[in-house]
Amino acid sequence: MATVPAEPIRDIAHLGHVEMLTTNLDASVGYFHDVLGMEVSGEAPGSAYMRAFWDYEPASLKLTASEQAGLGHVAFRTMSPQALDRRVASLARSGTEGSWSEGDFGHGRSFQFLDPDGHQFEIYYDTERYAPPPELRPALKNQPQRFPARGVGVRELDHVNLLGLEPAENRVFLEEHLALRLTEQILLDDGSEAGVWLASNQKSYEIVYTRDATGTPGRFHHLAYLVDEREDVLRAADICLEYGVEMESGPHKHAIQQTFFLYTWEPGGNRIEVCAGGYLILDPAHEPVVWSQAERAKGQAWGMQTVASFHIKGTPPVPQEEELLAGH
Amino acid sequence: MATVPAEPIRDIAHLGHVEMLTTNLDASVGYFHDVLGMEVSGEAPGSAYMRAFWDYEPASLKLTASEQAGLGHVAFRTMSPQALDRRVASLARSGTEGSWSEGDFGHGRSFQFLDPDGHQFEIYYDTERYAPPPELRPALKNQPQRFPARGVGVRELDHVNLLGLEPAENRVFLEEHLALRLTEQILLDDGSEAGVWLASNQKSYEIVYTRDATGTPGRFHHLAYLVDEREDVLRAADICLEYGVEMESGPHKHAIQQTFFLYTWEPGGNRIEVCAGGYLILDPAHEPVVWSQAERAKGQAWGMQTVASFHIKGTPPVPQEEELLAGH
Amino acid sequence: MATVPAEPIRDIAHLGHVEMLTTNLDASVGYFHDVLGMEVSGEAPGSAYMRAFWDYEPASLKLTASEQAGLGHVAFRTMSPQALDRRVASLARSGTEGSWSEGDFGHGRSFQFLDPDGHQFEIYYDTERYAPPPELRPALKNQPQRFPARGVGVRELDHVNLLGLEPAENRVFLEEHLALRLTEQILLDDGSEAGVWLASNQKSYEIVYTRDATGTPGRFHHLAYLVDEREDVLRAADICLEYGVEMESGPHKHAIQQTFFLYTWEPGGNRIEVCAGGYLILDPAHEPVVWSQAERAKGQAWGMQTVASFHIKGTPPVPQEEELLAGH
Amino acid sequence: MATVPAEPIRDIAHLGHVEMLTTNLDASVGYFHDVLGMEVSGEAPGSAYMRAFWDYEPASLKLTASEQAGLGHVAFRTMSPQALDRRVASLARSGTEGSWSEGDFGHGRSFQFLDPDGHQFEIYYDTERYAPPPELRPALKNQPQRFPARGVGVRELDHVNLLGLEPAENRVFLEEHLALRLTEQILLDDGSEAGVWLASNQKSYEIVYTRDATGTPGRFHHLAYLVDEREDVLRAADICLEYGVEMESGPHKHAIQQTFFLYTWEPGGNRIEVCAGGYLILDPAHEPVVWSQAERAKGQAWGMQTVASFHIKGTPPVPQEEELLAGH
Repeated sequence: MATVPAEPIRDIAHLGHVEMLTTNLDASVGYFHDVLGMEVSGEAPGSAYMRAFWDYEPASLKLTASEQAGLGHVAFRTMSPQALDRRVASLARSGTEGSWSEGDFGHGRSFQFLDPDGHQFEIYYDTERYAPPPELRPALKNQPQRFPARGVGVRELDHVNLLGLEPAENRVFLEEHLALRLTEQILLDDGSEAGVWLASNQKSYEIVYTRDATGTPGRFHHLAYLVDEREDVLRAADICLEYGVEMESGPHKHAIQQTFFLYTWEPGGNRIEVCAGGYLILDPAHEPVVWSQAERAKGQAWGMQTVASFHIKGTPPVPQEEELLAGH
Repeated sequence: MATVPAEPIRDIAHLGHVEMLTTNLDASVGYFHDVLGMEVSGEAPGSAYMRAFWDYEPASLKLTASEQAGLGHVAFRTMSPQALDRRVASLARSGTEGSWSEGDFGHGRSFQFLDPDGHQFEIYYDTERYAPPPELRPALKNQPQRFPARGVGVRELDHVNLLGLEPAENRVFLEEHLALRLTEQILLDDGSEAGVWLASNQKSYEIVYTRDATGTPGRFHHLAYLVDEREDVLRAADICLEYGVEMESGPHKHAIQQTFFLYTWEPGGNRIEVCAGGYLILDPAHEPVVWSQAERAKGQAWGMQTVASFHIKGTPPVPQEEELLAGH
Repeated sequence: MATVPAEPIRDIAHLGHVEMLTTNLDASVGYFHDVLGMEVSGEAPGSAYMRAFWDYEPASLKLTASEQAGLGHVAFRTMSPQALDRRVASLARSGTEGSWSEGDFGHGRSFQFLDPDGHQFEIYYDTERYAPPPELRPALKNQPQRFPARGVGVRELDHVNLLGLEPAENRVFLEEHLALRLTEQILLDDGSEAGVWLASNQKSYEIVYTRDATGTPGRFHHLAYLVDEREDVLRAADICLEYGVEMESGPHKHAIQQTFFLYTWEPGGNRIEVCAGGYLILDPAHEPVVWSQAERAKGQAWGMQTVASFHIKGTPPVPQEEELLAGH
Repeated sequence: MATVPAEPIRDIAHLGHVEMLTTNLDASVGYFHDVLGMEVSGEAPGSAYMRAFWDYEPASLKLTASEQAGLGHVAFRTMSPQALDRRVASLARSGTEGSWSEGDFGHGRSFQFLDPDGHQFEIYYDTERYAPPPELRPALKNQPQRFPARGVGVRELDHVNLLGLEPAENRVFLEEHLALRLTEQILLDDGSEAGVWLASNQKSYEIVYTRDATGTPGRFHHLAYLVDEREDVLRAADICLEYGVEMESGPHKHAIQQTFFLYTWEPGGNRIEVCAGGYLILDPAHEPVVWSQAERAKGQAWGMQTVASFHIKGTPPVPQEEELLAGH
């Protein structure tokens, strides 16, 4: 029998949206609209807001034109206004600088700050529920939007993966200040953490940090949209093939988290995953699953060795990537 | 923008297990082992404890030999010991009688009480994590047990459906005393509730009450095990056909909750569902989806009219069922 | 060990295309283009020619505007010019009237005749291979056309089902004059045949006759397009739901032929099936599978009783249908 | 319009069975029974006969204990006794030596001969239809055997792949003497053929020759069993992972033939594929699809580069394999 644990805190409800910088806004919108089957739900100068059919908020993706690809910001919604205040207070206690914003398309005021690696974060509570225009009204009222019978037809935003100098440092920061929970991690023989997977809710992960092989802080690895079935990921690969979308790796199954994945490059320069599967964590006292260096070396679940570019490339690109790739 | 809500309470972690009474214990064990692909993890005089491969506790099903089929009890695990105390205090305040048990196979002390309809409930916190014997050890360490390549291969306990005289009364009881959250409901033109779906976590439902057409209190409708893909439900139907298992309805898709289902009758007399799909509720202020009498009359998602027996039969069986069925 | 059989004749290569009459040509084209994901490959006054992405000829469907829905004609391609001559000679020997046509969009000269029930048939050998325009060129050269990531995305024409006064009479006609092979049949207790399934190649069926419950000769029951996976049929139902397409029956699995099916009504008045599965017949001396009246009464593979309209309605509609439906 | 072709000859009905040599008969039987879900239908000293549930003949695989892994023989069934005589006459005319056998478990007399590379072939017509024992009787009478809800549950023998010094020479031999038809091929810049895919029926291939990288004649590459859905191949990978079966490559999709594949090594030393998909060839005048050296270099359909061992290893193993692998 377990000993009495402290009561778990849960102040974050879920990963809300991601802003991604693109070197070709129109082409990126085309990728998410035509290939992934998402909708443009809002626009602003230099930016487009997009959504998948099961996202309950108006947008889960903000695309912003930029000289370089990469992350704009990552936003989490809190469980309540009070939870938002508690998280801001926690950040203030630690001396983390931040500032309030009046909000953006689809959500209200938010607090913005940087993680130890320099990625921009945002937390907010006030939000809107998506109200579809007539042509996007669903047949079933428990569904936020009509299922788009176009392209992959991704369901909803799933997770974001950031590169970091020290995943452990960023993990501790998110555990302390957002009360996220570590669910799986890679622990190298030297005691450092090569990757950490965290979640705010029953999902087994919403945000991942993996070590940046180039030693550059603040870079972006990928974001992922969810589909219902593994077959949908295979179908996504068939569709990407027809559209000439570059596929970097997969479809295959991750050993860590057991997600079935396909990694592609969108035309604005960022790596995008389509995924299915994974698992829910029901145990309130779940212990993180720790993968050793030797276990990690076995490759993916069914034995595929991950391509070198996956471990090296991020956005924005840096010159060291080419040197490292040449060494493989 | 939403108004400031009260902070949501979450004291229940998840549906833990269900005890089901069977008129043929050996045949029921055979159904769950051979057809559904579950394992017997424990035994007691007159009872067998069974588990699906992704259940993290030792058992999600207790089968107990009985003169009549039906529900033994429904158990929920709390988020913490403190949450258990809070729930017991809430029940005591309302005058609900209950008693402490020392625990059962796989979990520690629990508090037992009846819902307004007379179904037996149990809540507990202390539990064990399943430790598989060598032949059931999984290849991937983030998985509780080896995937059984036998029969349907159900993943984990999904939900339980109880019949009730007044679903609304039972709903209010679970909202107040277990802090469960209503996610969908059927609201008839006369203002009564024909069905209510509730959850303790991000799942869109774990327990359902639907109105007992025979006016009998305390009966059981079905329990459901989850599979990963809709194809697995189709494959389950192929397997049931070969095993001579009676299929009552499906495979088809529910409009409510959008679950893809197959209802079967296990040889001990109870209705068992194999399901896939559904959705997660990420919004902490999610409003219940209300289906009107007219909307409900449209049948299932793709138009199939549900067979009459589904709306009438429960366990234990009562004579009024035959009269009602004859009227269809 | 088998006795020495006569050498099997195979003069027909495959079901080539179907002409269907529609009361609303534009709406029918919209259904096949938007919902099923087919392409318009040709046009003529009052007609549109359409194709699925894996059809190797330019069109598998000719839609022709008409006062009433129903069959235009059914066309089979022969194995060779010589085979075409042999089949025409066989028809002539039996006194069947027919006439040569110069061909139509996508294929060359053809011989046209009626089956005993009065359905229009056509056989031809000369044909074209589809040459896609640039925007429909496939990524893989062994595929006739780019996979359309739109709607259901049906693969290719699968089969056609005709209603007949006496299925047996039509079966004998196709066996004798087209050398088609009976693969499955329903044999009623009175010795008559309620349904016959025939094929020209390894497919287990390409054309079906079922008895017309209204006693009207020459009517059309449905045509079917194939998808790769059962999941694609489920996805088709999700898409039809969003498009407001009427679904008559399914998704479910036929006992006969084991096809996984969904029957819908297209807006021009005809019943259209989306199907997956079935089987190949490799045995050159395959014996037809005979289903008795009692076996047939068991319903579909997993126990669903087929809706009455499926056994009664055909196109063009006749007044007797309503009387028969009222009797159910 | 096409010019008038000669009438196609079709004397071979289908790939009938394969005899495979195993260094560990018991372990091989265990692999095919437990992991692939096949049945042992017959036994002889040193051999076991096995079948998949949709094979209509008693066995599609003969496993024979041997010092070295590799091919025993490949057997094709003819369309008729007359076709068998024609094929034997054709072989005799070319001076190919061969001999009649009285038959083996499940089939009657057969003619045995070698291909140019020295692989043992067999052709036969007389055969038995599988009559299942009571415990293997199917629920649906159009199915040869009960669906085994065990392991992968493969459906039927799909194809065999042989290594050859010159695939072109073997292709010409099979075209001339078995009247098989070339459907796809790899044509290198030097005009030689690196791989040829042939079929006797509407299937797009039943037998493949690829060039032996070690320059050894008569070796075996793999045989393949078919499953219905791509998801079944993914599930096969999950099962192989749990059973500790070595997976060499996949799941992924071939560009050539578009088959979705998983290659594994069975414990008796041979490479075994589980596959889904592919396509039917309905056009009686289908032109082979020719892949150039440059097209082939693009890797598999979705871009995965095939592992070196796939292009080098065969059975029986030869020392040159290690040298070649070291060079990669």
